[in-house]
Amino acid sequence: MSDTRFDFRVTYTDGRARRGVMTTPHGSVETPAFMPVGTQGAVKGLTHRDLEGLGAEILLSNTYHLYLRPGDDLIARRGGLHRFIGWPRPILTDSGGYQVFSLAARRTIEEEGARFQSHLDGSAHLLTPEKATDIQSRLGSDVAMVLDECLAHPSDAATARASMERTLRWAKRGRERLLQLRAGGVDGVAVTNPEQAQFGIVQGGVYPKLREESAHQTVALGFEAYAIGGLSVGEPTDVMYDIVDHTTLSLPEERPRYLMGTGTPADLAESVARGIDLFDCVLPTRNARNGQLFTSEGRINIKNAQYAEDDRPLDPACACYTCRTFSRAYLRHLFLAKEINASTLNTLHNLNFYLDTLRRIKDAIMFRRFESFRRAFHHSLSRQPHDS
Amino acid sequence: MSDTRFDFRVTYTDGRARRGVMTTPHGSVETPAFMPVGTQGAVKGLTHRDLEGLGAEILLSNTYHLYLRPGDDLIARRGGLHRFIGWPRPILTDSGGYQVFSLAARRTIEEEGARFQSHLDGSAHLLTPEKATDIQSRLGSDVAMVLDECLAHPSDAATARASMERTLRWAKRGRERLLQLRAGGVDGVAVTNPEQAQFGIVQGGVYPKLREESAHQTVALGFEAYAIGGLSVGEPTDVMYDIVDHTTLSLPEERPRYLMGTGTPADLAESVARGIDLFDCVLPTRNARNGQLFTSEGRINIKNAQYAEDDRPLDPACACYTCRTFSRAYLRHLFLAKEINASTLNTLHNLNFYLDTLRRIKDAIMFRRFESFRRAFHHSLSRQPHDS
Repeated sequence: MSDTRFDFRVTYTDGRARRGVMTTPHGSVETPAFMPVGTQGAVKGLTHRDLEGLGAEILLSNTYHLYLRPGDDLIARRGGLHRFIGWPRPILTDSGGYQVFSLAARRTIEEEGARFQSHLDGSAHLLTPEKATDIQSRLGSDVAMVLDECLAHPSDAATARASMERTLRWAKRGRERLLQLRAGGVDGVAVTNPEQAQFGIVQGGVYPKLREESAHQTVALGFEAYAIGGLSVGEPTDVMYDIVDHTTLSLPEERPRYLMGTGTPADLAESVARGIDLFDCVLPTRNARNGQLFTSEGRINIKNAQYAEDDRPLDPACACYTCRTFSRAYLRHLFLAKEINASTLNTLHNLNFYLDTLRRIKDAIMFRRFESFRRAFHHSLSRQPHDS
Repeated sequence: MSDTRFDFRVTYTDGRARRGVMTTPHGSVETPAFMPVGTQGAVKGLTHRDLEGLGAEILLSNTYHLYLRPGDDLIARRGGLHRFIGWPRPILTDSGGYQVFSLAARRTIEEEGARFQSHLDGSAHLLTPEKATDIQSRLGSDVAMVLDECLAHPSDAATARASMERTLRWAKRGRERLLQLRAGGVDGVAVTNPEQAQFGIVQGGVYPKLREESAHQTVALGFEAYAIGGLSVGEPTDVMYDIVDHTTLSLPEERPRYLMGTGTPADLAESVARGIDLFDCVLPTRNARNGQLFTSEGRINIKNAQYAEDDRPLDPACACYTCRTFSRAYLRHLFLAKEINASTLNTLHNLNFYLDTLRRIKDAIMFRRFESFRRAFHHSLSRQPHDS
């Protein structure tokens, strides 16, 4: 750990829920934390100052997209991702694997890595564990993710085992590459953030024993922290919660735990209850652009006719700019009129709902009333008086 | 004038350029002023707080669009446009005429008014001078525009005269309707802003004598102020400047003069030099969304390859959020990646350029150095070192 400023300290616990502070080369992050997704170096619909106003402390950006456009070399020449995009706070980048696996017909997986065709121009690429590490070295995120194989759901136990074992072999290669970059570099690979941390990823599908084995062996490789991948891919919610519940027990207490690509507001509370510290998900931002809004009284589909003359704010309990300033009637008008503003105002609200939920979770843990928060939160979410 | 809080006071003059304060029921506006265009009750890509941050004091909104969607009755039931869109400052609405005339094949002009089919659903409508007044009464803008006939360019003198005379007849009908609404109302027409002002519009094409006649007769009808319409429709720039030059001489000194739908940064300076006080134009906002940016060193087309690795701000002389925070390289990336953010950041910059130009013009008039500002401004615009 001496090679990076990355650090994590648990400050409060309540049951298995933890509150903590994750320190990165670009500042610290209070956990549990939700990372807004800035796929191409920007959160769709928001400026960085909007994000800062919401209290976002860390941004997630996608290696696959930035690698293809504008290119990791160009970003390295600009001094790295922070300088290129003008975001001075922590950034986590994924490995690119998930996007590549999502290309379906346009990719094949080999032991060497994942071959794929660009969704932009059809050009052929090979993403290896080493290359995923190199690209992220050029981007200079504060947290890099190791390349893993994303298993489809459902998969049988043998397929899940083979995939989990490949992920372990890739993790070893990715970690070795990072250590090599830290030790003095690799020709042609810029290191724009020398103190970049790297997280390992636990796989193993819906099989607790495989998850356990993956966790132990990934931890043995000695990453700065650990993520749980391959969930929220179609499995039932209770299966996901069980896997999270089981897997966090195999991960070190003193390292942050990141549940990748999840989830709904309820998922956040349930995962924190099982020891998760970090989240990312496109749900609040993508849903916002589709007019689907999260409120303290359930979900609202703003295009519904019932809001045409509704002068109330989206969520009377919300203090975001959107709720302080605009009515449902106006937000519906903006959405139907396809105004850019509709995306901006809806995204502001949904992200505020997520970030505010995590603020309330952190307070609840500190005051040791997380269980009562959790019950009240689920109760409020299940009311859904508007649309359902 | 006793029926409305509308007022105008010239505070400084320098040659024919004037600085002043226009007072409306929702606050005052320092002139010369540029009105950002919020077609459907929102400036595309910006939130109201962005606009306030830029120092925008008055918004223009389009009657045609709001009439069709969400409907002026709905807006009246919400308490008027200010309350509906959450913008507490002055709003000017156009009459809807310009959009209707732009529908080309989908409209016919009669003495009664303009018949047209909605661009949204093809439904048939008749926009009369009375109806344009009624719709704006429901919207409750601070300044309503009277319905005029927008003459195509080029038009011969006979056509221009006939059209100008029809505009005068329509102006009389529109004014009478407003006075009727003020005097106690018209059944079925809500008055959401009882102190709404109404501006007359001078027409007459490129014919100075027709413009003069139009101005005198429009002024005789006794509007709160006067606009020059039917310019920036394809005529040469010097013809436009000549018509503005000539027409402002026929308009009362003590009333604001509004040049509709204009123009380039150079047009602003040239029109202020000829006595204009108010402007609106989609140029800064529409160009921004197309990646065309105004800078103190000329125009930039941000998608050009030469900006791919350009770490400089768009405009080193600009203090807007975009220029303070982001590089041309990042702005180019956002534009090519079709990020919503590209529209927002570019629009912020272009509108700041326009609003800042008017701040500099106001200062120059106050210090009686408008002529030297005007020369320096044209010189800087003509440098265009980047793209041309």
